[in-house]
Amino acid sequence: MWYFDSDYLEGAHPEILRRLAETNLEQTPGYGEDEYSRSAKAKIRTACDCPAADIYFTVGGTQTNALVIDSLLHSYEGVVSARTGHVNAHESGAIEFTGHKVLPLPHCQGKISASDLSAYLAGFWKDENREHMVFPGMVYISHPTEYGTLYTKDELSALSDICRAYRIPLYLDGARLGYGLMSHHTDVTLPDIAKFCDVFYIGGTKVGALFGEAIVFTCQNTPAHFTALLKQHGALLAKGRILGLQFDTLFTDDLYFQISAHAIDMAELLKEMFIQKGYELFMDSPTNQQFIILENDFIEKLQNEVSFSYWEPLDDHRSVVRFATSWATATEQLDALEKLI
Amino acid sequence: MWYFDSDYLEGAHPEILRRLAETNLEQTPGYGEDEYSRSAKAKIRTACDCPAADIYFTVGGTQTNALVIDSLLHSYEGVVSARTGHVNAHESGAIEFTGHKVLPLPHCQGKISASDLSAYLAGFWKDENREHMVFPGMVYISHPTEYGTLYTKDELSALSDICRAYRIPLYLDGARLGYGLMSHHTDVTLPDIAKFCDVFYIGGTKVGALFGEAIVFTCQNTPAHFTALLKQHGALLAKGRILGLQFDTLFTDDLYFQISAHAIDMAELLKEMFIQKGYELFMDSPTNQQFIILENDFIEKLQNEVSFSYWEPLDDHRSVVRFATSWATATEQLDALEKLI
Amino acid sequence: MWYFDSDYLEGAHPEILRRLAETNLEQTPGYGEDEYSRSAKAKIRTACDCPAADIYFTVGGTQTNALVIDSLLHSYEGVVSARTGHVNAHESGAIEFTGHKVLPLPHCQGKISASDLSAYLAGFWKDENREHMVFPGMVYISHPTEYGTLYTKDELSALSDICRAYRIPLYLDGARLGYGLMSHHTDVTLPDIAKFCDVFYIGGTKVGALFGEAIVFTCQNTPAHFTALLKQHGALLAKGRILGLQFDTLFTDDLYFQISAHAIDMAELLKEMFIQKGYELFMDSPTNQQFIILENDFIEKLQNEVSFSYWEPLDDHRSVVRFATSWATATEQLDALEKLI
Amino acid sequence: MWYFDSDYLEGAHPEILRRLAETNLEQTPGYGEDEYSRSAKAKIRTACDCPAADIYFTVGGTQTNALVIDSLLHSYEGVVSARTGHVNAHESGAIEFTGHKVLPLPHCQGKISASDLSAYLAGFWKDENREHMVFPGMVYISHPTEYGTLYTKDELSALSDICRAYRIPLYLDGARLGYGLMSHHTDVTLPDIAKFCDVFYIGGTKVGALFGEAIVFTCQNTPAHFTALLKQHGALLAKGRILGLQFDTLFTDDLYFQISAHAIDMAELLKEMFIQKGYELFMDSPTNQQFIILENDFIEKLQNEVSFSYWEPLDDHRSVVRFATSWATATEQLDALEKLI
Repeated sequence: MWYFDSDYLEGAHPEILRRLAETNLEQTPGYGEDEYSRSAKAKIRTACDCPAADIYFTVGGTQTNALVIDSLLHSYEGVVSARTGHVNAHESGAIEFTGHKVLPLPHCQGKISASDLSAYLAGFWKDENREHMVFPGMVYISHPTEYGTLYTKDELSALSDICRAYRIPLYLDGARLGYGLMSHHTDVTLPDIAKFCDVFYIGGTKVGALFGEAIVFTCQNTPAHFTALLKQHGALLAKGRILGLQFDTLFTDDLYFQISAHAIDMAELLKEMFIQKGYELFMDSPTNQQFIILENDFIEKLQNEVSFSYWEPLDDHRSVVRFATSWATATEQLDALEKLI
Repeated sequence: MWYFDSDYLEGAHPEILRRLAETNLEQTPGYGEDEYSRSAKAKIRTACDCPAADIYFTVGGTQTNALVIDSLLHSYEGVVSARTGHVNAHESGAIEFTGHKVLPLPHCQGKISASDLSAYLAGFWKDENREHMVFPGMVYISHPTEYGTLYTKDELSALSDICRAYRIPLYLDGARLGYGLMSHHTDVTLPDIAKFCDVFYIGGTKVGALFGEAIVFTCQNTPAHFTALLKQHGALLAKGRILGLQFDTLFTDDLYFQISAHAIDMAELLKEMFIQKGYELFMDSPTNQQFIILENDFIEKLQNEVSFSYWEPLDDHRSVVRFATSWATATEQLDALEKLI
Repeated sequence: MWYFDSDYLEGAHPEILRRLAETNLEQTPGYGEDEYSRSAKAKIRTACDCPAADIYFTVGGTQTNALVIDSLLHSYEGVVSARTGHVNAHESGAIEFTGHKVLPLPHCQGKISASDLSAYLAGFWKDENREHMVFPGMVYISHPTEYGTLYTKDELSALSDICRAYRIPLYLDGARLGYGLMSHHTDVTLPDIAKFCDVFYIGGTKVGALFGEAIVFTCQNTPAHFTALLKQHGALLAKGRILGLQFDTLFTDDLYFQISAHAIDMAELLKEMFIQKGYELFMDSPTNQQFIILENDFIEKLQNEVSFSYWEPLDDHRSVVRFATSWATATEQLDALEKLI
Repeated sequence: MWYFDSDYLEGAHPEILRRLAETNLEQTPGYGEDEYSRSAKAKIRTACDCPAADIYFTVGGTQTNALVIDSLLHSYEGVVSARTGHVNAHESGAIEFTGHKVLPLPHCQGKISASDLSAYLAGFWKDENREHMVFPGMVYISHPTEYGTLYTKDELSALSDICRAYRIPLYLDGARLGYGLMSHHTDVTLPDIAKFCDVFYIGGTKVGALFGEAIVFTCQNTPAHFTALLKQHGALLAKGRILGLQFDTLFTDDLYFQISAHAIDMAELLKEMFIQKGYELFMDSPTNQQFIILENDFIEKLQNEVSFSYWEPLDDHRSVVRFATSWATATEQLDALEKLI
């Protein structure tokens, strides 16, 4: 069986395991106060071209989203997100669990538009009953989005301008950030993201780490006593060095970018493969998630030998399915798939 | 510098790293639906002699405590704990963050007594104003406690009887469970714990794993949709197999017990060493945390070459300090320490 | 100035004040354990034709919604509501504050349809990723809705059937229930509501009381220790008798229904008045809130002498405005208005 | 039967009912934006000698405590309180429900001491593990306390100094504030309280109102968007004028102080009566709650004709009971009691 279900099917990039083994019996202080964490943070600051960035490591994405959002919002505020945003749709209500509403905006292939955001915020602040409503206190975007799409630099800049005009932070969920940055169809760099966003996270879980995300506060805006907040949310790893070491490895010699580029190459090959065989794309995704339209009959047959995600029905006899590549996708997987389609 | 600060200074037992490397490129489903997790659960069930146990893996202790306690309590209930319990004292209010009060009982070296518990519960249920109070909905104990002490089988049995009489679950925090089970001064086995407790967790983070805890629901009492609750609490690891694999390794060929026994042996040697040199124990701990009384001057001097925890002042010129051994403590560490004291 | 802004502009029906004065120096136990509360509950049970109903009094609507919803939902569940539902739009995030998501459905003039609800629930339970989503644990409707519209008996019955099929409670927000029951265009009675809903509240604040709402649990489904939950939510009134006495008065000699009928009569007159003068209705509301289309210029002029609510813009030069009548609306108010339009 | 159970057995001072009736059919805007609320606030500012005070009206005490504490604390903070404080003991966990821990201090007859507070805060800030603990973010005191005792001006001043040194607010729960201010044994005035506290509330429910409390923020420290927070907590009364009118009445011609003084006079008479008949006081309370030691046999007998509160057992055959007077206690009640003891 060949698996294209997601980008977190394997363990970690071998270099990470090598360094874990190499440093295994060293004794270091806990909770992120170790040298590896410090080194990783320095490298990430450099990669972001943001010397003042304040960085914390967490274990997973939902945890990170709930922590960041709850920490930056006041009690009377909610977070604006595309209706399809991960925080709105697929985190079991983790944001609401912390007491905050997700304020949904319409989306276009997972993205929100500056005009929708602007209209929404203007409308809110004009409404005389707003003290009876949830204040928009933050904007959440994912990049790549849940549809694998990307914001352009202009789009990011426009969203950022609006947020700064309203003095609310722009938060970018970068669970798959590497795949976005290495896309063949983007003009957005990591320093751009650090410049436009008030806070974002660099995803490790889906991009070569065993697990781990790096939260980047870009503008001296770390919530007070953030370590206590990490602990309170159950997000403070005792052996913090394991997170530090993984990110130190990923940000040494551009490993994070190289392995992301590999996933993108594989995704482009996969897309090309489907196109050449006459299949139709549901949308032309620029990242590692590819959405293909298949006949329902064929889906059933293919599933005997390949595993992938069912996305949604298209019409009576066809559906959209998703194939994800990753840092670990091997050429032989694509070869095998090619023979089956 | 030699470190005796805690039992989570190193990485993981080498066998765990070996298996992580060995299985690294395998593709498995996420969120604990993999074969390694299944295998680990089966082995833990056997070790607990509790075939009906339902088991979930989480990343860390505070996360686990907040999740288990919040999931098992009703909104109007709190959790009874020793005043010194980790959930009351050192989790940054993670329990209250989920909406529940910790109801503190007096402690004796970290332990609560059946008589105090019984009096408290009886008093609560006799109080006519109890609808204006927080209902005791669960009892939390740690074993070993924060003072390294252990409940006897009789004590556990008595607490269990009281909880069952009041129909509230007894929850045991086993962050250092291995060190408790392998103590030279205990009559409590893992099956005993499974028998007396309604839910407990087997600590991995402090006992040989990179990280990870195994929650054991012993009596068909898993909260409905517990996976959703894990997700909501930010505690559902995407690559769940990493947890499964670690516990599978720890519960293969009794590794968990062997490495725990090693830590105990080292702790007993360390204690003996101090006694023989004429130092006074603050208390005679049966587990891997040893509490020694030292002159303040000597503490300062010793800290130049050895790292350990300051516990509390004793009198004007003496203090209590804590030395912790672990699965990774080497004989050479003790030898070095011996020369310095 | 004449006010048609809302139905909570005046104090209370004079009979309520009379009885408050009459009983003022009586000494009664607090927290709802008094004779007036008991009597009121008995009368409400009779009016609902639901002898087993369990009834509690609270102070206001948002408080009631948050309390009922939080008490009946599990942690992993949210409440389904029309996007325009009061709990979704105008309660400052009070539901999310208790940890629960509002799951929005499309609406038609404030109402949800059985087909939308059914499709949503079926879709949820077919989704294999549902453990990562918020479970629909309850359905919230308002009757009259925020648009003054009413469900028919068939519509209520259909929603009720769906809820019972999925074993989730149907909760009806009756902030303006009297005005719904006395509408000239309804076939729904109070016993119907008690029959179709698992829980609902009878609004007092907007229907003749100084304040107060009566929560009715219709089917032995009161959450355990509901008094403690009331207290925890800050919703337990010390002098509970003031609530009891008000509802006792409202449900003596059908006062609640009579004063509601008066508001409806006034609303029908008002509507007729506008129609006869050639104005266009935005919608033909069957209850005490009437939505009229006015020229923007005329709105500005009218506001100098009459106060009413701006609802929403219609086109470049016209807007929708809302006039509300109540139990206290006097004929002279309508006469005055008639001269101005 | 004569009742001395509490100070909220009757309705309201007749003058309040008179004004409610007098203004009943006036139309006013909701949510506290009315003239009566404005007038009441101005009078309270004058009474507090605090022209900059910002004032909000709420319905009840538990609601007020949860709202104020939650609004002023950061997520990582808890509130320091005497172990016997109402927020710690008798509010069904309403504080924890908002996510915050109550940090208990020892008490002496319900009061905390400056030295205990100071030692606690100093200890916290010296603890190197404090990021794993709950930060003391506020100090809660009640005045009168749950034992009817009062802080002296010096004691209040000392607590205030400590709070200001640590830059955390001092919050005073004045559920029975009138009875404290009118005590024959106090040197504390309302302006003193406004000077020493950052926020406090003036209790109406127990001092002549039907219900209602007045929150006073004394130093430009109202949380942003406090109206939204009121709404979110279910504490925003639709007909806010009913609160405004009650406090306007209480603070006209010193009514609040006069009726409080009456309760104190009655309490002193009652105390004297017991002393003269040879009974022993449990403590010499300076306010409207008197704690008397009675033989258990006599308690049972007395309860046939008088209702009062059982406080706690004293020894095998005696117990402490509480008699409360109020603004409404009549001389004939005391006469009747005198004949029975």
